[in-house]
Amino acid sequence: MSLLESCRSPSDLKQLPLDRLPKLAEEIRDRIIHVTSENGGHVSSNLGVVELTIALHRVFNSPEDSIIFDVSHQSYTHKLLTGRNGPEFDKLRQTGGISGFQNRAESPHDAFGAGHAGTALSAALGLAAARDSLGGSEHVIAVIGDAALTCGVTLEAFNNINFETKRLIVIVNDNEWSIDKSVGAISEHLAHLITSPIYNRTNRELEQFLKKVPGGEALLALGSRIKRDTKDFITTKASLFEQFGLRYFGPVDGHNIRHLVRYLEFCKQAEGPIVLHVRTKKGKGYAIAERDPEKFHGASPYFVETGEPRHSPSSAEPPAWQKVFGETLVQIARADKRVHGITAAMPSGTSLDIIKHALPGQYHDTGIAEEHAVVFAAGLAAKGLKPVCAIYSTFLQRSFDMLLHDVCLQNLDVTFCLDRAGLSPGDGATHHGLFDIAYLRCLPRAVVMQPADEDELADMVCTAIAHPGPAFVRYPRGCAVGVPMKPAPARLPIGRAKVLKPGADVQFWALGTLCGEATALAGRLEAERPGLSAGVVNARFAKPLDTDLLLGQAGRARLIVTLEDHVLAGGFGSAVLEALSDAGSKVPVVRIAWPDAFVEHGSSQAILRAAHSLTLDDMYAKVVAGLAGK
Amino acid sequence: MSLLESCRSPSDLKQLPLDRLPKLAEEIRDRIIHVTSENGGHVSSNLGVVELTIALHRVFNSPEDSIIFDVSHQSYTHKLLTGRNGPEFDKLRQTGGISGFQNRAESPHDAFGAGHAGTALSAALGLAAARDSLGGSEHVIAVIGDAALTCGVTLEAFNNINFETKRLIVIVNDNEWSIDKSVGAISEHLAHLITSPIYNRTNRELEQFLKKVPGGEALLALGSRIKRDTKDFITTKASLFEQFGLRYFGPVDGHNIRHLVRYLEFCKQAEGPIVLHVRTKKGKGYAIAERDPEKFHGASPYFVETGEPRHSPSSAEPPAWQKVFGETLVQIARADKRVHGITAAMPSGTSLDIIKHALPGQYHDTGIAEEHAVVFAAGLAAKGLKPVCAIYSTFLQRSFDMLLHDVCLQNLDVTFCLDRAGLSPGDGATHHGLFDIAYLRCLPRAVVMQPADEDELADMVCTAIAHPGPAFVRYPRGCAVGVPMKPAPARLPIGRAKVLKPGADVQFWALGTLCGEATALAGRLEAERPGLSAGVVNARFAKPLDTDLLLGQAGRARLIVTLEDHVLAGGFGSAVLEALSDAGSKVPVVRIAWPDAFVEHGSSQAILRAAHSLTLDDMYAKVVAGLAGK
Repeated sequence: MSLLESCRSPSDLKQLPLDRLPKLAEEIRDRIIHVTSENGGHVSSNLGVVELTIALHRVFNSPEDSIIFDVSHQSYTHKLLTGRNGPEFDKLRQTGGISGFQNRAESPHDAFGAGHAGTALSAALGLAAARDSLGGSEHVIAVIGDAALTCGVTLEAFNNINFETKRLIVIVNDNEWSIDKSVGAISEHLAHLITSPIYNRTNRELEQFLKKVPGGEALLALGSRIKRDTKDFITTKASLFEQFGLRYFGPVDGHNIRHLVRYLEFCKQAEGPIVLHVRTKKGKGYAIAERDPEKFHGASPYFVETGEPRHSPSSAEPPAWQKVFGETLVQIARADKRVHGITAAMPSGTSLDIIKHALPGQYHDTGIAEEHAVVFAAGLAAKGLKPVCAIYSTFLQRSFDMLLHDVCLQNLDVTFCLDRAGLSPGDGATHHGLFDIAYLRCLPRAVVMQPADEDELADMVCTAIAHPGPAFVRYPRGCAVGVPMKPAPARLPIGRAKVLKPGADVQFWALGTLCGEATALAGRLEAERPGLSAGVVNARFAKPLDTDLLLGQAGRARLIVTLEDHVLAGGFGSAVLEALSDAGSKVPVVRIAWPDAFVEHGSSQAILRAAHSLTLDDMYAKVVAGLAGK
Repeated sequence: MSLLESCRSPSDLKQLPLDRLPKLAEEIRDRIIHVTSENGGHVSSNLGVVELTIALHRVFNSPEDSIIFDVSHQSYTHKLLTGRNGPEFDKLRQTGGISGFQNRAESPHDAFGAGHAGTALSAALGLAAARDSLGGSEHVIAVIGDAALTCGVTLEAFNNINFETKRLIVIVNDNEWSIDKSVGAISEHLAHLITSPIYNRTNRELEQFLKKVPGGEALLALGSRIKRDTKDFITTKASLFEQFGLRYFGPVDGHNIRHLVRYLEFCKQAEGPIVLHVRTKKGKGYAIAERDPEKFHGASPYFVETGEPRHSPSSAEPPAWQKVFGETLVQIARADKRVHGITAAMPSGTSLDIIKHALPGQYHDTGIAEEHAVVFAAGLAAKGLKPVCAIYSTFLQRSFDMLLHDVCLQNLDVTFCLDRAGLSPGDGATHHGLFDIAYLRCLPRAVVMQPADEDELADMVCTAIAHPGPAFVRYPRGCAVGVPMKPAPARLPIGRAKVLKPGADVQFWALGTLCGEATALAGRLEAERPGLSAGVVNARFAKPLDTDLLLGQAGRARLIVTLEDHVLAGGFGSAVLEALSDAGSKVPVVRIAWPDAFVEHGSSQAILRAAHSLTLDDMYAKVVAGLAGK
């Protein structure tokens, strides 16, 4: 039995001799590499925290003590050490397997769920304050990446810690990367702390502690060396964390389990909220990932030996939606210097890396700071530029108030490109972009559109940039349709849909890629119901809707069917209902969209669609029932 | 002609002798006090920045230079000095008058609009980066309150400044108050900077500057005194701003125009982004407001002599909605220690000050940090407490992602009380709570309700707290209805509406206080149309809707009418449309709600309703048209 197999719970881990833990770390790395090479997943971040997670579970007692990982895409080791090393880990991120993130519904060891960055500290502070209120003595530990420090909500929590609890352990897992390389002043501050460590009153307390514990001598020697090397800095610089009233210790090598255990034991007995600065290396132990951590951030299945993806896209495969966006943006921005691209720490994920390299003066990376990114873009627009914010649909949720208060209310000329609108199967409920039409459609002045294919995406990016007000283009994850592209994109008329197939009795109104399904359904309907004619409309705009076309059709149709990759409540189909009702139309409508539930992770779009009664057959059955008046 | 009358633009101000400016400040104060005593408005914050604003317009050249006030409820002096001292200021915050906030549509001197806290720095950075990109040399100045420093978006911007521009002036207007007294580590940090000023390399640069300018000697003496008094601190402490890579100067007396002018002239020629820390006194120059700045934050019309409100509520007047909420919460929290109240810097505005004083151990103030407040509450709930977040509808927009990702997705037991749902007439477009049903209704697991009267509000607060998942209660600004209250609130069945008046032909479905209008419309309809019967339903729940009752009625009705204090797109009426459509009902629906437009400020609800065709007569006409099939 391997060491990992013998660790069925954190208490098993505590029985192992300390000197066996590096071997355990090795086994965990092999397991993570093996499973992610088959299933895809977050490789670099998980390989970076193997030793840290082992040390945390060695020192603390989960689930009584709560260990909360920020974003939690680095919680694989935590999952393996808390009873999830069986087939559920083989199927990580797949249907029937466990989630790639901490998830309260999955295990009592997952004290708080996540998927978006920056929330761990606030949640941990809530747990700590509740513990204090309930009179408990357990520990709460938040593990936050250096990139989370650029998130507003994390900084809000820092400001609040001392006012809510006297006991909280904050581990800053500093690997110099958000997803791409970290940016911003705090990132530079951490680098400064590493090159010029602080040796101050608080570290003398650590020194006293280490003198008393076995094995503390080596660390003490290290501490003295730091002290000696850096005496110039001893009194000249305080850490950011101390400005927030927290005591700061570190930096400590995040891959030395023995040192980590000692430091964490110190943290466990220390007074007051404290920060331990741990340095880790993304991709640690897998040379290929160490060299290219960004590539292995969220990786597709890969060959372990080479790091190359198992599925190599052939030249015949359609380009990714995001790639078409990125190239179109550069094409437009070359011709118009007012066009700038803005990302919140996702240059590669959004394809803004293309403009970053081609036109660096027209590119901005705000760090993981979606709120600031949107107001910053609004500021650029107020001065006459034409900014384009590329943010995943699910992350733009962070900026809802800014979209309303800073962009739409002021009628500023900002374009938003919402990547990953629709499903993100491997990531699951925290990452699906299924809510954006509902939260955008209520905003006065918002123009909201979705292309049916990549050529239309280019047209929509062009249209949105040309439109002198707020405009939103949503498009899914993955490969586009595979249509030929025009040499240059063209402006579309705002609020005008496109008839893909004429018809009269049933009218399919589809948004985005659902045009494909709509066309298939119309064909099947006409084949199975001779004499019945079915039309297909590419709606293009969720707002403003093409009410002229819709109402013209409604007068003659027996049924309207709407299709969208979004939840039912408040989505595109509801916009159609509103328009029909306002015009007094009585034509029945069947709305095909995701139900009012959180959609889990799964192996593929198709599997998740089947699980929620959204296969083509399910859709057809709904249409037939709608025609029968059921 | 007064000095103020002679200042028709900032260039007139520049012609005045420096020693006349204190007189100008006095005239401005009189004007602000006079107008706000008639119209209500933000008194304390505006009186605090009179000298600072005069000095800004003396030194900088608006509108070429951009002066952006955070929240901008302190921009009255700015408005008076930029050509808005006429009848438009007499009607401040009223119909036909100017807005109480900076507003790009109102004047070229308003470089960016606001109303919510924390956005000024991001916007200013956008303007500065655009200027750099366009090759301009003008200045950008952000004036931010100390309380804005608790806002995540401000801190996100601080992290980003040095990466986007080499020139930006940040004025920290430190008055120790957000709206109530500021909380948090940064607030303490500012206090520390005041008691232990930093004297460092950057301040020696200021010294050199002051030596060269006339009048700089007095300041220099002051600087030397600081230097002498604080030599112990010279090398031991850096400011938070310096951790973010900005140079910090101050603190400077914000009521000494001469000093302010010198400091601002220094800022104007200084290299790199810099922070000037200015100390001001809220309510300055109006003794009553100085004593009680919170009372005069957002004040109703008052008598200048006494500070007492012009309208003193009689004992016969119904209580404010928020008061009923605050008292109900304490009643419940006394009996159940798990119930905690959470505010984001608004204890008085939300009535959480009642629990603050009655049960301080069950009360939390996060500062202006709505995102953190929501995740913190989720953390409390994850540990078994029953938190109640009281946040204005418009400010909860900030937390949309947290409502989804941290509360609803994890099915945590958090109650949200959304004050100011509906109109906030004097404040206007930035403050109306007209979007919450749309952004909440798309969230799986959310229960969304609105009471028709204050007794039902108490029941709903009780119901939401008892419900073991996310629940949202929205209620308007102002006085409740004036019904008798039960001694203790009762739990309502989730998703069940209440028939207020039976009927058959027309069914009015009203949410919240619109029940009153619905009842009036039903009465008029029956009176004018003998033989026609009109029912009235208090919907209570926007989600889940009482579909059983609705569909039962729909089978017999000729018309359903929905009424809500919310925008049309995606609101309560759309939920009714969705339910009817999904059931195959063909009953026509008239939806009465706010149109797809931003609603301006105005003298009253009634005036704004009339401006948007929402008087009772307008509503009646819509119903009649609906009955006629138009």
